[in-house]
Formats: sequence, structure tokens, C-alpha cells
Amino acid sequence: MKREQLTEKILDIKREKGWTWKYICEEIGGMSPVLVVGALLGQMKLVKPLAKKAAELFGLSEVEERMLNEVPMRGAGTPMPPTDPLIYRFYELVMVNGPAWKALIEEEFGDGIMSAIDFNMEMVREPNPKGDRVQITMSGKFLPYKYYGNEQGIPDYGFKES
Amino acid sequence: MKREQLTEKILDIKREKGWTWKYICEEIGGMSPVLVVGALLGQMKLVKPLAKKAAELFGLSEVEERMLNEVPMRGAGTPMPPTDPLIYRFYELVMVNGPAWKALIEEEFGDGIMSAIDFNMEMVREPNPKGDRVQITMSGKFLPYKYYGNEQGIPDYGFKES
Amino acid sequence: MKREQLTEKILDIKREKGWTWKYICEEIGGMSPVLVVGALLGQMKLVKPLAKKAAELFGLSEVEERMLNEVPMRGAGTPMPPTDPLIYRFYELVMVNGPAWKALIEEEFGDGIMSAIDFNMEMVREPNPKGDRVQITMSGKFLPYKYYGNEQGIPDYGFKES
Amino acid sequence: MKREQLTEKILDIKREKGWTWKYICEEIGGMSPVLVVGALLGQMKLVKPLAKKAAELFGLSEVEERMLNEVPMRGAGTPMPPTDPLIYRFYELVMVNGPAWKALIEEEFGDGIMSAIDFNMEMVREPNPKGDRVQITMSGKFLPYKYYGNEQGIPDYGFKES
Amino acid sequence: MKREQLTEKILDIKREKGWTWKYICEEIGGMSPVLVVGALLGQMKLVKPLAKKAAELFGLSEVEERMLNEVPMRGAGTPMPPTDPLIYRFYELVMVNGPAWKALIEEEFGDGIMSAIDFNMEMVREPNPKGDRVQITMSGKFLPYKYYGNEQGIPDYGFKES
Amino acid sequence: MKREQLTEKILDIKREKGWTWKYICEEIGGMSPVLVVGALLGQMKLVKPLAKKAAELFGLSEVEERMLNEVPMRGAGTPMPPTDPLIYRFYELVMVNGPAWKALIEEEFGDGIMSAIDFNMEMVREPNPKGDRVQITMSGKFLPYKYYGNEQGIPDYGFKES
Amino acid sequence: MKREQLTEKILDIKREKGWTWKYICEEIGGMSPVLVVGALLGQMKLVKPLAKKAAELFGLSEVEERMLNEVPMRGAGTPMPPTDPLIYRFYELVMVNGPAWKALIEEEFGDGIMSAIDFNMEMVREPNPKGDRVQITMSGKFLPYKYYGNEQGIPDYGFKES
Amino acid sequence: MKREQLTEKILDIKREKGWTWKYICEEIGGMSPVLVVGALLGQMKLVKPLAKKAAELFGLSEVEERMLNEVPMRGAGTPMPPTDPLIYRFYELVMVNGPAWKALIEEEFGDGIMSAIDFNMEMVREPNPKGDRVQITMSGKFLPYKYYGNEQGIPDYGFKES
Amino acid sequence: MKREQLTEKILDIKREKGWTWKYICEEIGGMSPVLVVGALLGQMKLVKPLAKKAAELFGLSEVEERMLNEVPMRGAGTPMPPTDPLIYRFYELVMVNGPAWKALIEEEFGDGIMSAIDFNMEMVREPNPKGDRVQITMSGKFLPYKYYGNEQGIPDYGFKES
Amino acid sequence: MKREQLTEKILDIKREKGWTWKYICEEIGGMSPVLVVGALLGQMKLVKPLAKKAAELFGLSEVEERMLNEVPMRGAGTPMPPTDPLIYRFYELVMVNGPAWKALIEEEFGDGIMSAIDFNMEMVREPNPKGDRVQITMSGKFLPYKYYGNEQGIPDYGFKES
Repeated sequence: MKREQLTEKILDIKREKGWTWKYICEEIGGMSPVLVVGALLGQMKLVKPLAKKAAELFGLSEVEERMLNEVPMRGAGTPMPPTDPLIYRFYELVMVNGPAWKALIEEEFGDGIMSAIDFNMEMVREPNPKGDRVQITMSGKFLPYKYYGNEQGIPDYGFKES
Repeated sequence: MKREQLTEKILDIKREKGWTWKYICEEIGGMSPVLVVGALLGQMKLVKPLAKKAAELFGLSEVEERMLNEVPMRGAGTPMPPTDPLIYRFYELVMVNGPAWKALIEEEFGDGIMSAIDFNMEMVREPNPKGDRVQITMSGKFLPYKYYGNEQGIPDYGFKES
Repeated sequence: MKREQLTEKILDIKREKGWTWKYICEEIGGMSPVLVVGALLGQMKLVKPLAKKAAELFGLSEVEERMLNEVPMRGAGTPMPPTDPLIYRFYELVMVNGPAWKALIEEEFGDGIMSAIDFNMEMVREPNPKGDRVQITMSGKFLPYKYYGNEQGIPDYGFKES
Repeated sequence: MKREQLTEKILDIKREKGWTWKYICEEIGGMSPVLVVGALLGQMKLVKPLAKKAAELFGLSEVEERMLNEVPMRGAGTPMPPTDPLIYRFYELVMVNGPAWKALIEEEFGDGIMSAIDFNMEMVREPNPKGDRVQITMSGKFLPYKYYGNEQGIPDYGFKES
Repeated sequence: MKREQLTEKILDIKREKGWTWKYICEEIGGMSPVLVVGALLGQMKLVKPLAKKAAELFGLSEVEERMLNEVPMRGAGTPMPPTDPLIYRFYELVMVNGPAWKALIEEEFGDGIMSAIDFNMEMVREPNPKGDRVQITMSGKFLPYKYYGNEQGIPDYGFKES
Repeated sequence: MKREQLTEKILDIKREKGWTWKYICEEIGGMSPVLVVGALLGQMKLVKPLAKKAAELFGLSEVEERMLNEVPMRGAGTPMPPTDPLIYRFYELVMVNGPAWKALIEEEFGDGIMSAIDFNMEMVREPNPKGDRVQITMSGKFLPYKYYGNEQGIPDYGFKES
Repeated sequence: MKREQLTEKILDIKREKGWTWKYICEEIGGMSPVLVVGALLGQMKLVKPLAKKAAELFGLSEVEERMLNEVPMRGAGTPMPPTDPLIYRFYELVMVNGPAWKALIEEEFGDGIMSAIDFNMEMVREPNPKGDRVQITMSGKFLPYKYYGNEQGIPDYGFKES
Repeated sequence: MKREQLTEKILDIKREKGWTWKYICEEIGGMSPVLVVGALLGQMKLVKPLAKKAAELFGLSEVEERMLNEVPMRGAGTPMPPTDPLIYRFYELVMVNGPAWKALIEEEFGDGIMSAIDFNMEMVREPNPKGDRVQITMSGKFLPYKYYGNEQGIPDYGFKES
Repeated sequence: MKREQLTEKILDIKREKGWTWKYICEEIGGMSPVLVVGALLGQMKLVKPLAKKAAELFGLSEVEERMLNEVPMRGAGTPMPPTDPLIYRFYELVMVNGPAWKALIEEEFGDGIMSAIDFNMEMVREPNPKGDRVQITMSGKFLPYKYYGNEQGIPDYGFKES
Repeated sequence: MKREQLTEKILDIKREKGWTWKYICEEIGGMSPVLVVGALLGQMKLVKPLAKKAAELFGLSEVEERMLNEVPMRGAGTPMPPTDPLIYRFYELVMVNGPAWKALIEEEFGDGIMSAIDFNMEMVREPNPKGDRVQITMSGKFLPYKYYGNEQGIPDYGFKES
């Protein structure tokens, strides 16, 4: 059994039952919808108690439940560059704005990155008379580049230099 | 003259003067720092009053000022996939979470995309005892796919179906 | 079940019945043929009343009908660059004329894009003694780049500057 | 001298003079603006009388004038997939709608293509209270696939079969 | 059913029967062998009378016969660059000689292309004491680039300028 | 000095003098125009007597003359897939017809290839009331795959099996 | 049936029987092991007498025997660049030494190539106290580039110039 | 000035002076040689005191010293897959062993990654009678995937589940 | 049977039994866990005694046991660049640090590479109050580039020059 | 100074002097021509005594002599797949024969590779009445995959199993 086969099965059941993601996430609970949906689409792991709930909801076997608890080969199945317009717009934001983000984050925080692992994200509908908006709030831990081998006590390695 | 030559010149002056992006953005003002920095890096256009201020600040010629006011060939100069770790982490977020974002946005809004054009974004430092975080808030207008040719008055085209 | 399997099934039925796309679009109605055919080929969504009609026409199950109502992963299945000569010619038009289109649209409308979402298109046969022509009329909403953060009231952001 | 150097020189002069493409096309005249701009950007050829006018307008040497009259290596300099959002939207239209266009054109015309050579195109602003639209009208000669070797008089080769 | 499955079936029957392409082309007739073989390999369409003959020869069902009459997604299944040495040599000829062909054709005919649609081709064995040769004769209609928008009567657009 | 710099110089002189390829090939003579033009464009070698003539015609230095006599790094400078429509059409012919050519050549000649090295080619204008045609005649030596190690005298290795 | 399915079947039988390639090549005989193994792996053709022997050895059907006698689509199934370290090392040799091989072969032989078709190769174990070595001897016919169109009797076309 | 120009200048001085990296790293000190060399090759940042020392050693201008203190666009200039055999071997280790590393790290640590940012590395020569060895010790902080949105107190998110 | 099918079967059994890799490696023993896991994931070979143990543990057939003893097509199934974040971080380390590793290894050892074949590796958890770390120790034999053809006794070919 | 600039300078001098590679290799001596030519083309290192001789022959500066003694970034400048027919034929040999070479080498030697580092090669002209042949003899040390962690004394790791 491959993870993509489990994903296909889950989507078949969702379609047959006529469930929404909202309903599914409420039933499974315990984590942000982006993570729960990501796991059901084969990109994230469900921790044991949530995998159990998901298995009950979808009527999965014990082996399938265990697969949901495994860390998948992330990124599999998303062509890059994305062909789907909705996903492509995010890709374009990275391509066009990436250099400016780099300049501003490094000036504010020093040499390092925003973690994509210690990271969370929320998506909400922002009502707007000119057309509602998608609002996304991301928060990732800043991870400073470590400059090891500093036996001479030079200060501020990897953090913004004062 | 190519836009990338102007970008190189601007970066040379910034380095020589020892200016920060913060200082530059305050001097030019009028738009979000992401846009101003993006323009100086050759990815965005500066409207005329801002191009004028930028030209004064950097001591640019009139022709260079006009070039800042032109829409550049966006995306030029950013290799994809990004080789730089800071920019790559955003790319990875799109690749890993793209399918979940698609599922949740389409369930909430119907068939369409989050605009990358009618879009704004703010980045702030989020103090945190375990290590400060980069917080990014994005807001993009939802653009519903238009289903034209609907002479029969079928309701709810391109919006979330009730 | 994957969308491409549903597409293959629909094409099998069309072939068996000897139907034309014209006949199919008239039966399903309600939207432009490009959209209806696109949906049956797995690139577009059919809204509920049309998915229902399509299901009746092709004798699809309720689950298959629901799948037609889902937003597909657009762009899947079209190799780029296109290998098929008919599709490649459009790709070539973009590659060769893209820079000129960009220059002219930006001069006329300011910084922004022609939407590929709020977009419609019509294709007609243009009789011509030297050989009939394919006439395509496209109309996409112009979306100006938003220059947010404009607290200083600088006019004309994102629109053609006067 | 390379064509891209001539293009850069022409853009430098346009910027210095503050000319619009509209003005330039009116001065050169004789062909559609898409073609004239395309030629000045290094994607098309200007026939001799127009190359002469362009040379006069931009103060080009005789050798540069001759270069404008040469057929360039088309497509050079446009990265594919396009990184610029304005050009990418057209690319996306081809990728998402290509299969449907193929189905409909082949049903209407038979086996063949829409020429990208015997082709014309017009772009106009379509005023609209919800936001003006870009309207593009394309017309390309349909070229039927020739099925040679037909010594047996089978009718309708390469045209729509009745 | 996919076209590649029909191709595989046809090749299985050919192998089982021990038929040559020569025999098959004589039985089906009506078009050049390159076209008939191309259609049976899934790259071309067989017009109705030939699809009928092919169906009789291979014992195909009516639905399979109709599929042979459909225009396939051309180019599918040929990796580019070609991995097979026989096909690669043609690819190499285009890569190495392309620029010279372009220079000579444009000098002789003006701005345009040799059609790959209104095109025919013959392949014969050329006996030669040093080793027989493959002789290929191609003939494609020259299609001049149309320079539309010529309201001023400038002559010779798209044809060789005198 | 790089070969592409020599090519650029030769094209500059050709443009300045207003020479045609026809004139240049007649002056240099001795080989087919496709080869002479290919050499001047940096894809072929000119043997010594022709390199001498070319150097005299273009006023090249002795070192440049020697460079024309060197075998260049063939294929450099032609993007693949070709972006130029004229060259792309040949590429498309290979992609679409490659499998049929392979089937027919192998049936006629046995296992092997048509040489792209012991190869010649002629291009002529084929007058035609419906529009002149480009006629290309290619002739390449058939090279049978050698099946070495045949100590047992099995006949017909590498040639068409009778 | 596809060639890769036949390859898989042959490998299954080899594994089940516990045969070595050495044993298989001795049983089939008649050609170099590289060719016989290449054919069984789907990259070469077995001439009829050898295909017959292979069919007897592996207990193949008559249709499978005929498939072994067909020229396969060579190169299918080997990713390039090779991911397997053993194959990659050869790829690396070509990449790193290619330019030197080109310089030396052309100086010795003139303009042309070493044939990959009229080519043979032997691999032997070279005992060595520091670790045995793989010795490979290749011999390919030199094929001089033909410079056709030489009506003027210029000597030494395509051979090393004296 | 571009970072790669500074790198070229530094390498020119190193060559002229006949310095070793060992000498350079001792002179600059303060960080691991991998980091110092990385910075001089344009892949890392030198903190201010080290940039000062480097500038003194190489006789750089103040502006060049500041550039050494900037975070470069990492990864620029290394083709991937690496063409150089020394670098490629590391790439191959990742490609061949990546799946096993993933399985073992995730089993030991839970869902997460080894940081490439909070990371250090030491390289030493390991004397060995059969040939000395390169010994590399890497140590990267394990970063557990954060499963946010856990309002229900489910334990062990992002760490190895007990 | 393909190796990837055997891998899938082994993973299915592991999941069903609830075994850890630690348990599996202890049962099979005899080699480092990275190698054993690599073999079970289809990237390495298990020598006969270990293949036997693995077959007993997983209840495999004799043919499957033999397949485990075969050298697989290494690298198959790992997309490059890696899409999975855990594997990508190693890829990034190579891309960013590759040039510095090359400089330092070559200075210490001379011209050559660190073998990826005569190579071993250990991974351990490094407890750390700020968060445990993944420690990886690699040791690869240095392989000096051999400069053959040295009949003149020039010393130190391929080793660090003194 | 970049290595490719030094290569260009060396080729300019070679052309000006009218030297052959044979002459150059005899003058420099000490190593196989493939290595000496490779070094002069920027793919190999010349050890000090040979770099000295090369510098004297070409009249290079001391700094240029040192650059010849550096290990270059190998593989730079050779496009892959190779566009040049002479180099491509070797690439094709790897692609088509790679799987058979792998099967035969592994059967003879066990799990491992033929080194591309401890490797030598000789190229000679093989006179032949049907056309001279290029004969290449390669000899690379076989490097067995090391299966470390073998505390249990299982024999024959990494060597052919008896």
C-alpha cells in the first residue's frame, strides 16, 4: 500500500459521504485544519490519537491508521512549478518577492531563516465590500545561522549584529 | 542600461553609504517596505513621486529615475527552485502545503484563487522567549473563476455554492 | 477514483455513442463550450446543476457527478512545452509576442495583469475565401498591482499614471 | 552587434526621450503596434520602409537599420515558463484550456492547427464599470493537416469529414 | 481506453501475425506509409475509409475504429531529446543545421516558415556501392509571416522583399 | 577569441556590406551552401582552401582564418527545444514522425541508423500555384548496428534479415 | 505487451533459476555478452537464430521470441544523468574528458566522430595486486564529416588535412 | 560590484601570494575553516570583526569589507547536480542514502529535520595504512515539526511518540 | 517483480507487525543500520547471509530473498532536488558548502575525491539541553586522481604535492 | 582571472603558433595526452613540474602557471546532454549500454564501481581497410561497496560472493 492510495481512498469516502473538510477537521480535531487536511492528503503525519479518530471516522483498517501516523515523503505529488492556478499564485509570490523578503528579514534578524518546521499558519476569510479576501497569518521561528568554531569569543554570531 | 545594472548600482551606493533598508524606506516612504525594497531590487515599479525620491536619495540620473518607474520583467534573477535557504523555505511551504491550502480555500470561497496582484503583506518580529519569530500576514483578494456563457440564470457561478 | 479516470470514462462513452462536443454542450448547456469541454476533460469544475445534467447524459453515478463538481488540479496532464502542434502554436504565440503584449498592456492600463480567472473567451469560424480562419476573442479583467502601505495619499497607485 | 544590444539601445533612447509606444508606433506606422513593438523588442522583422522610419526616429546607423530588417532568432530572451506575471497568465491559459481548444477546433475544422504565422491580433481596452478589461481578438488561418499519398481519391483529407 | 493501449494492441497483433509495415500499408492504402504507420503508432489520424480498412485488417471493434479516426495528442510518448539513436540523429541535424536552414530559407523566401502541417515526405532506399543510403524528400508549403495592419499599402509584407 | 565572437564579426561585415548568403557562398564556393553558411555561423569547419577564401572575402586575420578551419563545438547556441518558429517546425517533425521513421527505416534496412555525418542535403524552392514550397532532399548513409562477437558465422548481422 | 514487461519476465526467470549472465550468454552465444545482455535488458535486438535460442532457454512464447528480434526504443528506462553510481562514473568520464577526447580525435582523424553504431567493446578483469581493475576496450569506426557539394575537387574533405 | 567579482579578486590575491587556505583561516580565525572559506567563496557571511581581518589580509577596500559582512545569495554558482566529481560524491550520498537517513532519524527523533542552519561540521584527515580517509563530523540540531492548534493537550506533538 | 514492489511489501509487513527499524536491524544484524535499511528500501544489496535472515524475518519467498541479494538500480525513486524537507536539508548542505569542502579537501589531500563507495557513516543522537542534535560521522577513503603516463618519474602524482 | 579565460588564452596562442596538441604534449610531457590536453582545456590539474613547462611553452605569467596547478571545477563548460556529435556518441554509449555494463561488472566483480578517478585511458588509431577506427582502452580500479558494521565476521562483504 502506498500513501497516495490511502489518500485516494480517503477522498473517495469524503465524496461519497458528502463531507466537508470543516466537518472532518472538527471530528478529528486536535490540530490546525491545514495540518489535518495536509495529513489526509499525504503531506503530514497524524499523531496517534488523531490517526485513531481519523480511522474511526473513515472506517480505516488498523494498518491504514498506522500509515496515517507515519511521516510521508513530503512534497510528492505536487508538480513544481505548480500547474494549478491557486497554488501557482503562492509560488509566484515567492519568486517575485523572495529577494525583498530576504533583504528585510536579514536586516531585522541577522543571518538566518524563517523555519518552515517550527511554523504555524492560519487562514481566515476577511470580509470586504470590494470582494472578500483570503487572509493568511504565518509565524515561523527565526533560526540564526550558527557560526561555530568561535573560540575567541567574538560576540553576536548568528544574531543581528549591533 | 539594464534593470539589473541599476540594481547593482543602487546596492553599491547603499553599501558605500552604510544605509539600512529601514532608513531607505523611511526616506522614500509612501509604500510598504516590501514593495520599495522589491522595486530597488528590480522586481517592482516605483510610482513617479517615489521614483523621484529614490533618485534624489541615491543621486540617480533622470533616465535612471524613469527606469525605476518602469514595470520590470518580474521574476528575473531568482533561480527556481531557490538556492538560497531563506527563500527556499517559502518555496517548500508552497510545495508541501499547497494541496491543503487549495482544499481549504476552495471549500471556503468556491472555485477561484487568492490574487497575487491585489495583495498585501506585512512582516513583523514576534518576540518570543524561545526565540523570536518572523510573522507574516498576507491578504489577497479572492478572485472567483468566472463561468461565462450562463444565459440560463444558474445561480452562484464562481462563488461558493450554497 | 481519480479525475483522469473519470475523463477517460467520459471519452469512452462519447466515442461509443458517436456524440459530438457540440451535441454534448447543447445537452448540458448553461456555460460556454470551452468551459463545459474543459470540465469534461478534467480542467474545470461543473457547477451543480450542470454536473447533474452531465451525469444524466453520460449515465454517471452520484459519486462521479460530485467529482465533476469538484475543482480539479488544473493543468495536470498537459505537458509543457506542449507536444501537440495545435496547442504548441498558442504556446509559441505567448513566447514570441509576450514581451510586446506586456509593453502595450502596461502602457495602456498601468502596472498589472490581464486576469486568467475573471476571463472569458469565444471561438468562431471566420469564413475566408483563402481558407477559413479560427477567430478567438478573449476578454480578461485588468487587475492593477496594488501598492499598499500608501498612507501619504499618493494618487494613481496601481493604475495608469496620468 | 547582437540584436539584444540594439533592443537595449532602443529602450535607452525611448526612456531618455520619454516616448510612449503609442507615439513610436504612430511615427513608424504601417503595421499593427504588436508587430512594431515586437520588432523593436527583437522578436519581429521590420520591412524596409518601416525599418527606415524607425532608424530616422531613433537616430540609428544604417547598419542598425539593416538589423531591424533582419528576421531575429525569435523567442530568445523570454524564459519559459514565463516568470513575469503578466506573461505567465497567457501561458496558464494555454496550459489549462489547451485540451479544450484542441477538442473544439478539431471538431469544427477537422485535423489541423490555427496558424501562428498567418495570424493577426488586436488588443483594445474594454471599458467596464467593474474594472476595465483587456480584450484580445486573434485570427489565425486554419491549416489542415495534409494527408498526402492519396492516389485513391478518398475525399475530405485534412478537412472536416462530412 | 487510451490511444497508447490501442497502439500496444495493434503492435501485438502485427507481431503475432508476422506482418510487415509494408503489408499493412498496402492493405490499408490511400495515404503515404509514413502517415499510416504514424496513425497506427498513435501520432496521426486515419480518415474514416482508412480507419475502416485498418479495423477490418486488425479485427478491431467499432469503438477502436473510431479512436483511429480521432486526432491524437501528437508527440505523446516520444522523449525529447530522443534516447533512441535512429531518432536522435534527426534531432541532431536540426540542432546543428537549424541556424543555417533558417538563414537560407529566409533569404530565399522572406520571413516565414516551412509548414509542418501542409507537408509531405517520401523515404526511399538509395542503392550505393559504398553502402545504401536513406533518401528523404520533404516538401512543406512556405508560410510567410503576415504583417497585418498595413493600411498604407507598403508592398511585399511577408514575402521576400525585392 | 571565441567562435561566437568570430560569428558575430562575420555577421557584422555581411550586414555592413549588404551581402547575401548566395553571394558569399558563390565567392567561397567548393561546398554546399548549407555547409558554408553553417561554418560561418560557427557550426561547421571550413577546409583550408575555403577558409582562405572566406578570410579574403571578409578581410579576416590569419588567426581568424585558422579558427574557421577548426571543428567548432557543434550545437552550441541553439536552444533546444528551439524557440524560433522556423527551426521549431523541424523539431516538431522529428517529435511527431520519429516513431514512424524508425519503424519504416528499420523494416527496410534492418537495425541501424541514417548517418548524420555521412549526410548531404539540398534545399530548393518548389514553385506552386497555391504557394511555393520548400523542398529538402536529404541523403544519409545507412549505418547498420554491428553485432560483434559473432564467431559462429550467423549470417546477416546488422543487415536486414532475409 | 511492452518490451519492459518482457525484460521483467526474463529477469524473474533468471532469478528463479539462479542463472548467471555468463551461463545465459554461453547458452545463447553468437554475439558479445554486452550485446546479448543488452538485448535481454531491452536495449538491443537479437537476430533470429539467437532470439530462438533465448526463447528456448527462457521458455518464451513465439510472440515473445519475435519481440526479442525487434529493434527496441533504445535508451528507454535509463535516467540521465544516471542515478546509479556504477553507470554515473561513465557519464562523468564523458563530461570531464569529452572536450579532450574531441580535441585529440579531431587532430588525429580530422572532422568526424567515432561511430556508436559500428562499434564494439570488450570488458575484462585486469588482475592487479592493488585491487583488480575493469578493463574496457572500445573500437568504433571513425566516420568523417562529409563535405558535399565539392565540385571543384578540393582534396581531403572530411579526412585529416595534410 | 557583485559578490562573485569579489570572490574572483580574493582568489587572484591568494594565488599571487601563494597562500594556503590554512594560512588564511589562521590569519582570520574566529570561526571554523569551512565557514571562513565558504564566506571567501561567496556562500557565507563574515561577521564584522572577521570581515575586518579578512580585509586587512587581502588589502580590500572598506566597501569590499562590508560586502563580506553581507549575507550572500547562497547556492549561487554551484550547478546542481554538481559536475565536479568531489562535490558530486556528496550529492550521490544524499540521493542513495536519503531514504534510509529519513527512516532512521524519524524513528529516533520523531517527525522533523536535522537543521542545516544550526549546524556545525568538522573535517579531519584520518590516517589509514590502506590510504588516508576524509572524516567528516556533522552535528545539526533536530527540529521537530510543530503541530500547532493542539488545544486539547495531546502530548508529544512533534517529538518521538512514546 | 520489481524491486520497488518488494520494498512496498516489506513496508506493508513492517507496518502490520508494528516493528521498528531498530528491531529489524537487530534481527538481521551484521551490518550498519543505514545499510540494512537502505537495502530494505531498495538502495543497497544484502549479502547472502543477511538476505537469508531478512527473508526469514519477513517471510519472503526464495526468489524475493535472491532479489534482496541483487545490486539494485541505486538512486531510483528519490526525486532530485529532494522534495522531502528532511532529505532536502542534506542536499542544501552540499549545494551551499560544496565549494568550501572542495577547497579544503584538495588542499589537505591533493587532487582527488572522498569515496562514496569505500565509505561508512554513523548516526547518533547527541543529547543537548537546547534540543538534541543529530550527529553524523562519515569516513570515506580519499581517492587521489591518478595521473597516468608518467614515465619520467615526476613524484607525487595524485597526492598532495610537497 | 577565471580558468576559462586562461583556457581561451592558451587556445589563442596555440592557434597563433599553429601548434598541434601532439607537439604541445611532447613539449610538456610527463603525463598522458588526455590529461595534459584536459588540463589545458580547464578540466584537469597540471602538477608543478608540468605546469612550469606549460608556462614556459605558452609564455604564461607565474600566476597563470599556478592556476594550471590548481584543481579546476571539473565538468564546467560541457553541456549535458552534449550538443557536439563527437561527444554525444560517448554519452549515447553510456545511455544505451549502461544497464548491460552494470549487470556484467557486478556479476564479475561484485557490488561496486569502476573508478573514474583511479583510471587511465589510451586512444590509438586502429588502421582498417574499411576505414580506420578509434580504439580506446580504459582501465579503472574496481572499488567494492564497503559494507561496514560487520562485527560478525560475515565473509566476502563488498567482493564477489563465492
